[in-house]
Amino acid sequence: MRALIFDLDGTLVDSTYQHAIAWQAAFRSIKWSVPAWEIHRLIGMNGTLLSRTVARARGETLSASRIESLAAAHGRDFSDQISRCTPLPGAAELIAQLVRAKVPHGIATSGSRKDVAPLLKALKLTRATKVVDGDAVRAAKPEPDLFLACQRRLRIPARDCVVIGDAVWDVYAARRSGIAAIGVRTGGFGEQELHNAGAMQVYRDLDDLDCHLDELGLSL
Amino acid sequence: MRALIFDLDGTLVDSTYQHAIAWQAAFRSIKWSVPAWEIHRLIGMNGTLLSRTVARARGETLSASRIESLAAAHGRDFSDQISRCTPLPGAAELIAQLVRAKVPHGIATSGSRKDVAPLLKALKLTRATKVVDGDAVRAAKPEPDLFLACQRRLRIPARDCVVIGDAVWDVYAARRSGIAAIGVRTGGFGEQELHNAGAMQVYRDLDDLDCHLDELGLSL
Repeated sequence: MRALIFDLDGTLVDSTYQHAIAWQAAFRSIKWSVPAWEIHRLIGMNGTLLSRTVARARGETLSASRIESLAAAHGRDFSDQISRCTPLPGAAELIAQLVRAKVPHGIATSGSRKDVAPLLKALKLTRATKVVDGDAVRAAKPEPDLFLACQRRLRIPARDCVVIGDAVWDVYAARRSGIAAIGVRTGGFGEQELHNAGAMQVYRDLDDLDCHLDELGLSL
Repeated sequence: MRALIFDLDGTLVDSTYQHAIAWQAAFRSIKWSVPAWEIHRLIGMNGTLLSRTVARARGETLSASRIESLAAAHGRDFSDQISRCTPLPGAAELIAQLVRAKVPHGIATSGSRKDVAPLLKALKLTRATKVVDGDAVRAAKPEPDLFLACQRRLRIPARDCVVIGDAVWDVYAARRSGIAAIGVRTGGFGEQELHNAGAMQVYRDLDDLDCHLDELGLSL
């Protein structure tokens, strides 16, 4: 294993629950009452697919302009809560460790550039960490584009990379990219849900992953 | 099966995520940064045990007065969000159906009377639904007291009752009461987590449970 590609929301930064609440408020703005747990299970997907998934489950459809205004409503509500979204335990430390050891690594997130900018800032990244956001690709997770774009920027073959993510959408997108996936529980998915999706291992959080880096064949 | 005992938060009312966010804010008020997913996994427990569990994981202790002020901070933040906590799909309908069919049933919640009053109101309950809240017993979930108090009020033997809950704490408390437990996924726990705790069956939500009431031996 030569390179690590991280998801952002729920993996490096504690923002999954705020995203869920913000999407719930967005749907409430069009008079849709959507249970928080259903939205939670969709966080990590791109916003358009998330909106369509919610609509389909209700037997409804959404126009492109309505999807856009839902995304805008989510963005506004999420911005209000963003100061509450702090780095998860071990996130900044693990990245600093990878930088010191010159291990190629990156972040691939479905989030829009605007939504993710303050979260990336909280992680105090340097240029050594390659970031690919949802605005950089045509299709975000669960499509493989984000991880493949990140892997190409790292110039490491897919089979030598590993994806670290908290959501089944990370695992699906990684599998479709030919990249092995490792789960962390920091987004609030159950361990078994991540294993069922195809995660080869599930750790509690990044501190726990740090203790097991040698199992990945990564020596720091 | 002759009687149903429901949990409230995350089972009948969509409030688990707001509780998680409110506890996170309470811990932030004493400068503790606690990841949302860790708090989420503790919702359904009584507040004192929740606070102590968080403290123990950090190698800290909390005085009784500090636990009280954390509970007060949680209560204030939760009150601000309570208008967002609406009944979950099928909840009001299922209870109305039990009332019509004269099936004994109740609600047993760890929540304080003050926190749960607006949630119970949203469910439009009648006197036919027996409610036991956290103020009525010495020890809330995962202790068995709440379910046993509700079962006694219903005057149905424990072996003829079934508990419906979204959290592992409901399942543990039910088992210790000698009452069978059924899980629902509306609190955001994974299906396997509920099965591992000892739930004899896990349904998606109360609508799904409604379709399977005959499997419980309940004929309405």
